Amino acid sequence: MHFRDIAQRLRLVLIMSVLALFTAQAGADNGATSFTLDNGLQVVVIPDRRAPVVTHMVWYKVGSADEEAGRSGIAHFLEHLMFKGTEKYAAGEFSAAISAIGGNENAFTSRDFTAYYQQVGTDALPEMMEFEADRMRGLVLTEDVIAPERDVVLEERRSRVENSPGSLLSEEVEATLFQNHPYRIPVIGWMHEIVELDREQALEFYDLHYAPNNAILVITGDVAPEEVKSLAEATYGRVPRGPDLPPRVRPQEPRQDTARTVSLSDPRVGVPSMQRSWVVPSYTSAEPGEAEALDLLAEILGGGVRSRLYQELVVKNGIAASAGAGYRATALDDTSFSVYAAPRGGNDLAAAEEAVEAEIARLIKEGVSDDELRRAKNRFLRGMIFARDNQTGMARIYGSLLATGLSIEDIEAWPDRVRAVTADDVRDAARRYLTTDAHVTGYLLPQEGGNQ
Amino acid sequence: MHFRDIAQRLRLVLIMSVLALFTAQAGADNGATSFTLDNGLQVVVIPDRRAPVVTHMVWYKVGSADEEAGRSGIAHFLEHLMFKGTEKYAAGEFSAAISAIGGNENAFTSRDFTAYYQQVGTDALPEMMEFEADRMRGLVLTEDVIAPERDVVLEERRSRVENSPGSLLSEEVEATLFQNHPYRIPVIGWMHEIVELDREQALEFYDLHYAPNNAILVITGDVAPEEVKSLAEATYGRVPRGPDLPPRVRPQEPRQDTARTVSLSDPRVGVPSMQRSWVVPSYTSAEPGEAEALDLLAEILGGGVRSRLYQELVVKNGIAASAGAGYRATALDDTSFSVYAAPRGGNDLAAAEEAVEAEIARLIKEGVSDDELRRAKNRFLRGMIFARDNQTGMARIYGSLLATGLSIEDIEAWPDRVRAVTADDVRDAARRYLTTDAHVTGYLLPQEGGNQ
Repeated sequence: MHFRDIAQRLRLVLIMSVLALFTAQAGADNGATSFTLDNGLQVVVIPDRRAPVVTHMVWYKVGSADEEAGRSGIAHFLEHLMFKGTEKYAAGEFSAAISAIGGNENAFTSRDFTAYYQQVGTDALPEMMEFEADRMRGLVLTEDVIAPERDVVLEERRSRVENSPGSLLSEEVEATLFQNHPYRIPVIGWMHEIVELDREQALEFYDLHYAPNNAILVITGDVAPEEVKSLAEATYGRVPRGPDLPPRVRPQEPRQDTARTVSLSDPRVGVPSMQRSWVVPSYTSAEPGEAEALDLLAEILGGGVRSRLYQELVVKNGIAASAGAGYRATALDDTSFSVYAAPRGGNDLAAAEEAVEAEIARLIKEGVSDDELRRAKNRFLRGMIFARDNQTGMARIYGSLLATGLSIEDIEAWPDRVRAVTADDVRDAARRYLTTDAHVTGYLLPQEGGNQ
Repeated sequence: MHFRDIAQRLRLVLIMSVLALFTAQAGADNGATSFTLDNGLQVVVIPDRRAPVVTHMVWYKVGSADEEAGRSGIAHFLEHLMFKGTEKYAAGEFSAAISAIGGNENAFTSRDFTAYYQQVGTDALPEMMEFEADRMRGLVLTEDVIAPERDVVLEERRSRVENSPGSLLSEEVEATLFQNHPYRIPVIGWMHEIVELDREQALEFYDLHYAPNNAILVITGDVAPEEVKSLAEATYGRVPRGPDLPPRVRPQEPRQDTARTVSLSDPRVGVPSMQRSWVVPSYTSAEPGEAEALDLLAEILGGGVRSRLYQELVVKNGIAASAGAGYRATALDDTSFSVYAAPRGGNDLAAAEEAVEAEIARLIKEGVSDDELRRAKNRFLRGMIFARDNQTGMARIYGSLLATGLSIEDIEAWPDRVRAVTADDVRDAARRYLTTDAHVTGYLLPQEGGNQ
């Protein structure tokens, strides 16, 4: 819940930077150990002995892009319902146990995965594993919890989407960018479909997707792999394997041939802004090296204050109040690469947009220098060093990448693969993907007399 | 196949006028008789004694919008495969029998239905019924016919869509207009999904949807209902009822809040053009009277040379070479209302678009006069008189409307419902649906140096 909250609230920029951080950490050589229980549960342990604390995360390889058409929001609704108790433990008992020891917990649903986690003192790990293993198959959903929790989700949607012009615009930009792939559908679900979600659908989704052989357990912190292994066998090991799941094959995008725009005018908008997105490969769907080049392209073009867009538009000519780029690198299928800008003061949006286009055109034409690339790689890889301070962040990297089809080896080879990207690779990625004739541009505009 | 050919080739304008013609004929009091066989097949007979000719059409209540996600084009591919022979008759035998007697036949797939028809001399009707009833459940698909026929469909798509900038644009306009509903997916299918269609998928689709209880037989021509009844019992009556089908519930559209554009620049485009579409109710999804008001709105705004758009933009100020409006009235779910214009000579597209917007704004502000509405109703209803000369057209009206959930009574009450529409109804429909802040505008543009 929490991750989605932030993502919804701070939108594109934060989503991008969080994802960049994830992948930035991904290659950390922290000595991850992985093993698989007899029932198919993959367990990954990343020791971090600096404090007597552990992060315990269970990842299900199912997200909103796996929902049945017309049932958008069921993955996220089920995430809420997972807190409603099991045959063994009443609703609230798990959370109360965490609070009692000063731990914290949360859960989040994304397009490709759903995860539940707790951060607690090391000695509470066995208890967390017992609780989490129990609700993997033991969830009890009574009819009386459904309507109130659905109201909670509806209110969540109202406050985060309906009340936010930027979120409304983002939803329609995604729905326009993806013409065929379910990434076009919002994770929280369309309002008119959330209203119809019910107990049977939640249980059907739970029974289909929640099982040890469709999950990954990631534990980071003050533990040894051997301890985790015996604990995991005693808890998760007792959960029966579920039926084999079919491959996660979603409808893919057709070739796109058009330049599209999506405009939202709203009296609540103060400063206008634009963002432009392209469909590009993800780490999972890309040819080797391509996603790494896109990551560095995002870094060079618009990753923070040293980037070209920020330096040119914000610092040098002062036309923009903000400008940047981002790449949703972690995804099972083809994903998006975006640039954005908001004009400063009296400058108009069209001028900011033209300046963004000019920077892209310049990069495609002139490429990047080896020195610029070297500095971008350093900035980008440095993210890892900071990330190592964050147990939960590390667990998220492993979980999200494994849940989208990468391997531990991929994650650990990642820094070297980033280092291997050449200046030509970056220019080629820009040339190939940041086309002028197939993209979607979103405009968030102050209301002007009711006409578009 | 033929209907889709025409529709693809002449595009929006013709689609609109054909559909308008359908609904225009729909209320014709031609004494349609309807009965249902024991196996669930609805039979509709519309006698037309002027010539010894009959049109024999079978409608299946399944179209591309009923396809499983990721299998776009399977409904249309199956339509092709339905000509591959049965246990009883070899491939080509049915068509040869029609040719031998100088008849003609065809088939077409749409979003909501698929139909097969023959027009032959009256005495050949029993033979047609025998053949068509036989392939309702008797289709034999061998693996060797699959790849060659898929190549035919791929070539059809290449020639009609890939080679036509207007069709490419149309596809992406639809994919943008419908964010959630399968109407966003092209009937012929996305290229990358057609390539993957196979025999098993075609048979699965056939077994699920082709059965007497999911079909409507429409016969117009030189026959009496009693004759048809005994013939139908002797042919279609022998086909076993299929399993009950679930209701045709498709994912519906969310509320739309944005103005979107879709632009295609192509060197093959000579004259630029624009079209703007809104999601509006269909005859099946509308509140009573609303679809009729939208039909008259389309007639007044842009239905032919007497319409406002044509008179103002083409005749009076000469800014446009063409301009009009259309309403895809016949659909199971919410559908689209569109306006379009192409500039004349040196005039630019923006000026033509502004003129279109000005006409819509004027209609919303000032409404329509009773006299203008009366003339529009006359023009619109007059369509029926011409339509009565066309047996196939009449069969198409009944088939398409029944296959999208209307009743014979609805069809026969339709002229009175059109007559009952008031000037306020028309203005209210425009005001409610032709909003300035939620629509999709497509631009077909000559190529200009590669930038959008």
